[in-house]
Amino acid sequence: MIDFPYLQSITRKTSSKIIMLVADGLGGMKNPSTGISELEAANLPNLDKLSKISTCGVSTPVLPGITPGSGPGHMALFGYNPIKYLLGRGVLEGLGINAKIDGQDVAARGNFCVTNESNVITDRRAGRLSTDSCKELVKLLNTIEIPGFEFEVYPVMDYRFVVVIKGMGASHEITETDPQLEGSEILQSNPTSDKGASTALAVNMFTQEAIKLLKHNKSKANGIIMRGFSSIPTLPDFCDNYKLNAASIAGYPMYRGVSGLLGMKVLECGQEFTDELATLKKHFQQNNYDYYFLHYKPADSAGEDGNFQAKIKAIETLDSHIPEILELNPDVLVLAGDHSTPSYLSSHSWHPVPFLIKSDVSQSTPDIKFNETSFQQLGSAGSIPAEHLMLLVLAHAGKLHKFGP
Amino acid sequence: MIDFPYLQSITRKTSSKIIMLVADGLGGMKNPSTGISELEAANLPNLDKLSKISTCGVSTPVLPGITPGSGPGHMALFGYNPIKYLLGRGVLEGLGINAKIDGQDVAARGNFCVTNESNVITDRRAGRLSTDSCKELVKLLNTIEIPGFEFEVYPVMDYRFVVVIKGMGASHEITETDPQLEGSEILQSNPTSDKGASTALAVNMFTQEAIKLLKHNKSKANGIIMRGFSSIPTLPDFCDNYKLNAASIAGYPMYRGVSGLLGMKVLECGQEFTDELATLKKHFQQNNYDYYFLHYKPADSAGEDGNFQAKIKAIETLDSHIPEILELNPDVLVLAGDHSTPSYLSSHSWHPVPFLIKSDVSQSTPDIKFNETSFQQLGSAGSIPAEHLMLLVLAHAGKLHKFGP
Repeated sequence: MIDFPYLQSITRKTSSKIIMLVADGLGGMKNPSTGISELEAANLPNLDKLSKISTCGVSTPVLPGITPGSGPGHMALFGYNPIKYLLGRGVLEGLGINAKIDGQDVAARGNFCVTNESNVITDRRAGRLSTDSCKELVKLLNTIEIPGFEFEVYPVMDYRFVVVIKGMGASHEITETDPQLEGSEILQSNPTSDKGASTALAVNMFTQEAIKLLKHNKSKANGIIMRGFSSIPTLPDFCDNYKLNAASIAGYPMYRGVSGLLGMKVLECGQEFTDELATLKKHFQQNNYDYYFLHYKPADSAGEDGNFQAKIKAIETLDSHIPEILELNPDVLVLAGDHSTPSYLSSHSWHPVPFLIKSDVSQSTPDIKFNETSFQQLGSAGSIPAEHLMLLVLAHAGKLHKFGP
Repeated sequence: MIDFPYLQSITRKTSSKIIMLVADGLGGMKNPSTGISELEAANLPNLDKLSKISTCGVSTPVLPGITPGSGPGHMALFGYNPIKYLLGRGVLEGLGINAKIDGQDVAARGNFCVTNESNVITDRRAGRLSTDSCKELVKLLNTIEIPGFEFEVYPVMDYRFVVVIKGMGASHEITETDPQLEGSEILQSNPTSDKGASTALAVNMFTQEAIKLLKHNKSKANGIIMRGFSSIPTLPDFCDNYKLNAASIAGYPMYRGVSGLLGMKVLECGQEFTDELATLKKHFQQNNYDYYFLHYKPADSAGEDGNFQAKIKAIETLDSHIPEILELNPDVLVLAGDHSTPSYLSSHSWHPVPFLIKSDVSQSTPDIKFNETSFQQLGSAGSIPAEHLMLLVLAHAGKLHKFGP
């Protein structure tokens, strides 16, 4: 939670309603050949209009120059220090497929792989195993019994799976069995502290049993490698800390999972943004919650694909939905992004991300437009760490008392 | 090192080459009578052009309002928390004259002084003793023998010298003998912890012996006072932490000393910037290193002298050298300053310092000019702590993996 020890003493419960729309990978980059970014090239009449009546600025997800994954990106937007509350790869992957991960469970990401007669990995992806074959092989893995532990295996896609290790002695303090390069043997897991001793042993036994079981299957896969052993960290409760009755609306399981971990009520909804909007409208009109996290995915996907035009389109689509969100008349509407995903880089990036907060106490700037440069140069909130955004949001919602006498 | 515990896990070795040019005292101040700063008054065609294709911003060396010495200013630029990794006055002074300071050695800055018959200091600078006399008197001090310790004394300039105390029990945990005002006696050194007991005793014996030896010399000096007892702190290695093969090119000993302490290879070169450039070209073309720290001193000296015109000239000279640096075609060219030195103040100052980073992923701003105000208002990187600059530099060099899943 935000590094401000008096937070709980200054938050107050009010009737005001907040909608926080997170556009994944919102920020972009000026393409060096044209000198304009996706947001600058897009036609965004609704967002431009909204910007002119909002408090605008840019947020740095982690630190200057640091490119965050979606985990740290979202944690920061929710006011959690993204370095302190880092969710492990296994946990995030598990949340992304709705795996059941409880308190002390350890989750890991796994690959089916191919090894040669000398036990050397020749293909870390088992010939890009099909998802159907993956499902079949996962059934085999789920028959393995290791005394004192339960290994629950879930197929993900292609050659990838998730293992959730349950048991009294389960600990994530162990090393990976995935050497992350071909030409190496499958590694032995070793404990990195006393706590990890029995889990490392169990992981090695599980790997050996898996190799036996995979000997005679139809695919090329004859081994497994695991990495990102992690447990769910102790996380302060979002609702308690902010005195909010918070709900999350996200089509993608990972974002549902993360928001659920923080204590938000994860609302049922379909995969598409239109499904999410229908869910939002229903609950908003029924006055069910006072904070809604609403996730918009397409801008990130287009950026990851390196598709400048598709990213423009994704933002323009978002723009077209702004009026129906405004029609709900929330006291506070926030639009933010977890990180930038410039199509020029085809990946997440470190660049500051535009945000706006519309409420009846917003500080607006007449000539501002909805893009990175305009928000950086003209936004009344300036440049802030993403971790501080929730404070600004609560302030705009009238949900913060004065600090100190 | 930057307060980011995952740094080593996200840095990666690549072939890209970085040149980081540090212009000492780069930033200035608008002269209140004319309303323009040295950088605004200067004619900087090459820097203006470079700014328009770079990621620009301003960096705060330590904290707003805090004026750094060159030590903290440089430590921050290299990504070391300038508060945590403070180099003591004795150590910095020693590095500045090429004194040999090893692991546990204690260095201090000393003055020759004049005391009256009641042992009261009447002149802390011994009548501004000449450097030649200083050298003579230092020879006397070097004859003093203190059991268990070696006191190595080096002349600096005028009345100033450096003492390096070597020996098993040497500790900097002692108080100063310099009262820092006239009208006081030379102080006794006392230990500030158990560790300092024998060193404090040795320092007091050394002072008494010095007073005896100085009784009959030709100058007025008849005593010594010492301050800034300090040892070299444990410093994380620059090359290991960033996975860089780093070299430093600086004419002035202090910068050579500091960069050497951090683990950079200190390259042989002459005192002038043209000598430094020749060294840079030779090694760059031989592909010897992937990071070069290149130091430019004249802007600071002109600012310290309170000479507005000379500072303009120093920056214009720097400007004239930019094309030959660009000709080397480094993947990343950084220009930054360790602190501001406004000629209006004739001293270092706390003002944010312009920086630019030119690479193929720079985010440029069309109308930007190379000066404090323009960089603050229009720079795409905004205002950052200097300690974070190296992260941005590594990001621009493609040397950072994504953080977190």
